[in-house]
Amino acid sequence: MKLYLAGPEVFLDDAREIGRRKVALCARLGFDGLFPLDGDPTLDAAAGAHARAIFEANLALMRACDAVLANLTPFRGISADPGTAFEVGYAFALGKPVAAYSNLPGELKHRAHGAIGPAAQGPASLMADGLHVEDFGHFDNLMLAEALEASGLPVIQAAGAAADPFRDLALFERALAALADARDAGRLARPPFHLEPAGHTRGEETFHG
Amino acid sequence: MKLYLAGPEVFLDDAREIGRRKVALCARLGFDGLFPLDGDPTLDAAAGAHARAIFEANLALMRACDAVLANLTPFRGISADPGTAFEVGYAFALGKPVAAYSNLPGELKHRAHGAIGPAAQGPASLMADGLHVEDFGHFDNLMLAEALEASGLPVIQAAGAAADPFRDLALFERALAALADARDAGRLARPPFHLEPAGHTRGEETFHG
Repeated sequence: MKLYLAGPEVFLDDAREIGRRKVALCARLGFDGLFPLDGDPTLDAAAGAHARAIFEANLALMRACDAVLANLTPFRGISADPGTAFEVGYAFALGKPVAAYSNLPGELKHRAHGAIGPAAQGPASLMADGLHVEDFGHFDNLMLAEALEASGLPVIQAAGAAADPFRDLALFERALAALADARDAGRLARPPFHLEPAGHTRGEETFHG
Repeated sequence: MKLYLAGPEVFLDDAREIGRRKVALCARLGFDGLFPLDGDPTLDAAAGAHARAIFEANLALMRACDAVLANLTPFRGISADPGTAFEVGYAFALGKPVAAYSNLPGELKHRAHGAIGPAAQGPASLMADGLHVEDFGHFDNLMLAEALEASGLPVIQAAGAAADPFRDLALFERALAALADARDAGRLARPPFHLEPAGHTRGEETFHG
């Protein structure tokens, strides 16, 4: 079973070494890990590769994978890396189950309160920047959290902040073990939404317009 | 032609009013605008709806749309809203062209330099947080920027910061006009990557590991 290993650790200086460690951990549980940028130095951004080649290579890896294991640790802000979020959406649309971990504890709501603060007046969900924050108990944006839920693979989240959140692989290992359990028990859900033909769903009836 | 109108303005207090304005602008150019959360108060987060219902409704709207117009203005950080990024990936995977605008000028690289700063030593792309920032001249993460390029619809970006970036619709109108031109000229590209069968692409040959 091929696992695409999404996450912002591709931006580390030692991304390839982290990738090798992740792929080795995958192999121990019978997974074939596919790490973005791994294996072809001509696609390393630092080597001046073309962005389009990296993009197409990552899409091809996702099309080839059976599932995704994403690092959704907040990256340069209160939420996950948007490139990883794009990849979660892309793979999920193709019917691949998505597992994820985050090396930072807590809910998006709490991080928004800490980083932005509440509005001077209005409901508790309204932040000082004039926009609400979701209040569903999710670790991050609803679309990410629900894609995991729909895959039957809730996020594996740290109890405390990791000292080196983009290199610490303890929760990656826990997420891998959960994926292996789901695989072995035949519980790896294929996201079901694509089985409904577009145009015959409640969403379209309700919202179209 | 149905357009899904992705963006973090769904978190505004007056999200429905912004949605109505966007849908009206769409109609003027012959587009049928689909705004997330629009039209059904039971799916309003503030009304205590279930996250899963919102998620499924948004997925259904994206499956029903012919193209996406995304607001990729940086949201609570230096990059786009991760929920919108998820949606761009989801729709792109289903072969929908994605157009986008950003009400903030500049490159991701410059925002990273401003918000995080460069590392004390190392290459210019290495930030003080120990991770690199991409240096491709993109307005945001490579996966987002290249999905637009692949759709034949480069980002419409502000020359200066908008005073009210989640309500200002001037660039939304410009992006709509560009989409209408592409539609009328038969230039609306369907992202081509899904035409290649998985397992026969360069990406898999190169990276499969």
